Amino acid sequence: MKPNTHTVPSDIEIAQNAKKKPIRDIASQLGLNEEDLELYGKYKAKINLKLWDQLKTRTDGKLVLVTAISPTPAGEGKSTVTVGLGQALNRVGKQATVCLREPSLGPNMGIKGGAAGGGYSQVVPMEDINLHFTGDFHAITTAHNAIAALIDNHIHRDNELQIDPRRIVWKRVLDLNDRALRHIVVGLGGPAHGLPHEGGFDITVASELMAILCLAQDLEDLKERIGRIVVAYRYDQSPVTVADLGAQGAAALLLKDAIQPNLVQTLENTPAFVHGGPFANIAHGCNSLMATRFSLKLSEYTVTEAGFGADLGAEKFLDIKSRTGGLQPDVAVIVATVRALKMHGGVAKEDLKTPNLTALRQGLPNLERHLDTMKEFGLPAVVSINRFPTDTEEELNLIQAWCQERGVSCALTEIWEKGGAGGENLAREVIRLAEEGKADLHFIYDLDQPIRSKIAAIAQKVYGAAQVEYSPEAEKQIAQCEKNGWDQLPICMAKTQYSLSDDPSLLGRPEGFTLHVREIRPSVGAGFLVALTGNMLTMPGLPKKPAALGMDVDKEGRVYGLF
Amino acid sequence: MKPNTHTVPSDIEIAQNAKKKPIRDIASQLGLNEEDLELYGKYKAKINLKLWDQLKTRTDGKLVLVTAISPTPAGEGKSTVTVGLGQALNRVGKQATVCLREPSLGPNMGIKGGAAGGGYSQVVPMEDINLHFTGDFHAITTAHNAIAALIDNHIHRDNELQIDPRRIVWKRVLDLNDRALRHIVVGLGGPAHGLPHEGGFDITVASELMAILCLAQDLEDLKERIGRIVVAYRYDQSPVTVADLGAQGAAALLLKDAIQPNLVQTLENTPAFVHGGPFANIAHGCNSLMATRFSLKLSEYTVTEAGFGADLGAEKFLDIKSRTGGLQPDVAVIVATVRALKMHGGVAKEDLKTPNLTALRQGLPNLERHLDTMKEFGLPAVVSINRFPTDTEEELNLIQAWCQERGVSCALTEIWEKGGAGGENLAREVIRLAEEGKADLHFIYDLDQPIRSKIAAIAQKVYGAAQVEYSPEAEKQIAQCEKNGWDQLPICMAKTQYSLSDDPSLLGRPEGFTLHVREIRPSVGAGFLVALTGNMLTMPGLPKKPAALGMDVDKEGRVYGLF
Repeated sequence: MKPNTHTVPSDIEIAQNAKKKPIRDIASQLGLNEEDLELYGKYKAKINLKLWDQLKTRTDGKLVLVTAISPTPAGEGKSTVTVGLGQALNRVGKQATVCLREPSLGPNMGIKGGAAGGGYSQVVPMEDINLHFTGDFHAITTAHNAIAALIDNHIHRDNELQIDPRRIVWKRVLDLNDRALRHIVVGLGGPAHGLPHEGGFDITVASELMAILCLAQDLEDLKERIGRIVVAYRYDQSPVTVADLGAQGAAALLLKDAIQPNLVQTLENTPAFVHGGPFANIAHGCNSLMATRFSLKLSEYTVTEAGFGADLGAEKFLDIKSRTGGLQPDVAVIVATVRALKMHGGVAKEDLKTPNLTALRQGLPNLERHLDTMKEFGLPAVVSINRFPTDTEEELNLIQAWCQERGVSCALTEIWEKGGAGGENLAREVIRLAEEGKADLHFIYDLDQPIRSKIAAIAQKVYGAAQVEYSPEAEKQIAQCEKNGWDQLPICMAKTQYSLSDDPSLLGRPEGFTLHVREIRPSVGAGFLVALTGNMLTMPGLPKKPAALGMDVDKEGRVYGLF
Repeated sequence: MKPNTHTVPSDIEIAQNAKKKPIRDIASQLGLNEEDLELYGKYKAKINLKLWDQLKTRTDGKLVLVTAISPTPAGEGKSTVTVGLGQALNRVGKQATVCLREPSLGPNMGIKGGAAGGGYSQVVPMEDINLHFTGDFHAITTAHNAIAALIDNHIHRDNELQIDPRRIVWKRVLDLNDRALRHIVVGLGGPAHGLPHEGGFDITVASELMAILCLAQDLEDLKERIGRIVVAYRYDQSPVTVADLGAQGAAALLLKDAIQPNLVQTLENTPAFVHGGPFANIAHGCNSLMATRFSLKLSEYTVTEAGFGADLGAEKFLDIKSRTGGLQPDVAVIVATVRALKMHGGVAKEDLKTPNLTALRQGLPNLERHLDTMKEFGLPAVVSINRFPTDTEEELNLIQAWCQERGVSCALTEIWEKGGAGGENLAREVIRLAEEGKADLHFIYDLDQPIRSKIAAIAQKVYGAAQVEYSPEAEKQIAQCEKNGWDQLPICMAKTQYSLSDDPSLLGRPEGFTLHVREIRPSVGAGFLVALTGNMLTMPGLPKKPAALGMDVDKEGRVYGLF
């Protein structure tokens, strides 16, 4: 998200003028040589997984998690702060690396925007990262749809597994926004063309394979997790897995390059791993575990981000990703803006330019709730106030005073406009907290608690809900999960990101509300149970004026309209 | 295709033991330096299109077209001969480069097989080439489906173009074999999810974008051709193009890397361009024009192949690709085998191991027909007898004597078993014919002939048909093509590859038959009219035991079951 200012060129102009170093030089900053890399052009590389054997006994560097208040349409700039903080840490003398998710092509073709940071805090080459990059998402699309084709082929042949075509839960995927593919009927045209049944396409980032790629410890673990995916149910309602079909080897083969972390750089030549990008609602919303692990072994400081606000992204980063991978974060950064806090205090988007201390004060409890959550997890936190040109001194002072009163660390950042130089205060505060070594991660729930008890822990300790209600369908699904032995898995909450509750209109810090769990969807391969509190759209549509219609490339290969 | 022999290891074993040179070294054999390349790992690279400006004034090297008799299930080994001839030319002192199509992933996951040559005449890295390679097909899949999503979005919004949803002719594509996607209904689920209509998926190689990528002269031409694609018809039945939607810029942007030719190498370190792979029935079945052009500028000899037999692949290579790109082939190689000629003489596949001179003699007229076709085009031809272990001396002698009687060049090759060393005789004969300089290419038809007259020319001069009949639908479509001004385009015949006629059971050299044209399908962007003589399957299905189920990758990343 970009502040409205005329003093800074557009993201793509800045990115195209970046003084990029050859990726070999960036790798050598990390102590890697060319044998450790698979080059993808001059400015992108994949890290050879074989390197892990040499690295695994090293001590991890410090891990900084960037999260945010509950997001608003005003934009908080979490990716921008993540990139800028990485740059700033290097400026103040720490060897830091950034870990981010890969952007999804579909939304780029829809609404103008992207996920490569902004202003002077971006990862580059920006065009590549926002288009095909190193082909990871295409590999996931292919592996996912290969499994779907094998399911339909199995049914079309003898259906030895007795798959109930009404109970196929493995849809197909494309990395595009295409609403017409949400609900389809396949297998029409007669007996030569398969068995007709209902189906549909999700966007690739919603594929369980994406979540698996981002949680796998290595290629072997990837394959085992793929084998555990439940793709359908038999006529007797018992689950059918990818391993039952025998397709885990082919799917893992198709992902053997995609699993290798991608190395790029920021505008200030800070190394950046940009790898994997699962949805932050029906999945856990973090870059790959492998990228984070490589970064921890190769850097003094690793700065990473988690999707949406701290109630969703950070909670899942800690309870799912950190638990799975044994990560030990040292500091959390909570990104907040005057604009977004004013929206949480009741101001409409069109009125955000008007100074409003009352609304700002009324919005601060949202920040407070996320700070409380970090305390629950045992993580020291610093608030990063991401400055926008329309912010007044009074508004900025109010937030800083509010933090000071509560003994909360706080740093004003101008990372979008100034790059790393605008984040040095934040960097120093992060270093101070990390070196204090007070982090003591404890999870919100234990894995052996019953499903309802795990959900209740998140709802109460993180969202501030009074109680949880379950639909009859969810009750039935919980019983099935218990019967199938899936009740020891962590919970992945799928909730609106705009509110701490499941009602997107309840901004600020709602209290005493009931969380409604409508559905439990097992992602057994990824290794979590998704608890859906609303209707999550897993295939976006295009807007009335899709960004794609403004995109172009000239005969020299120069890119237009991407951002 | 592989002869049955136990003396030679499997293709994947040979490929994995190849002594590959770094692709930089291969490029430097062509006089290219690293600035001219985009590296994709150590053994693959794309050629920077900007290089063309420096090369375009150079004189072209010699161009050798490898084609074949009408294919049979016995296998002719056309790709293997193409690769082996390239290797052999280098062995006898000519600097030669090979140009091939990229294999499609879908069929690799279905029936065991591939399109990277075989035995000791393969292109490598074989696993990469047969999996995601440099992502070209994924880019085409994405660009194709982005256009489809924009069409449905246009209709879902105001449908300003008045697109008739019953007359959308732009389907979607995936690079997989998936019969259940051939006939589908999209847009179900209610008003928020688009307008319901019939649709379907083709395999990516059947996309018109693939044909365009392979015929485009540069990025600008690519974009213009994409703009001309007809995607639907209005309620008044006038055509709607990609340019009407405004999507040609985005589609070209998504293809900006895919259009750059891929450079790899053969097992004997001969440079190989492997780029593009359109269907050989509803499209023209040749690697990209850009790859061929780069190769001609960079090599003394370029060896390339065209899909199926000379009636389809060579005819389209000459009448479509060479005409579009101004190519001047010097020699044609017609690949034949004892086994395939015996099948054309009436022997069943299971009896091929039995020597049978009578059947062989009866099959030779098929070869004769293709030799006649090369004469029609004005191209000197050499017959390459691709030797199999079950061939007897008497059988091989019979073909050679038959050729000698007719004054036809002929060379016995053992390219599969011996690599380039097994093709030196062929290489010397090719050089002799090329240096004689007798090639004088003239097309089978002129572009300004009426559509029916162009089709008749191919049917009579190439297939040996007595006459052509048109279905009422085809008659109507010819009238529409004339009305829309598309009648000046070349013809792309979609006919069974197994027979010179449109009846796959008529082997050998059928005569006096009628060719039945059922449908005319305009590919205005690619720049040809497809004349369909049968029901062409543009989305294959998986077999009962898909090859995918035998594929695997171990924790070291080693690949199994691909071949």
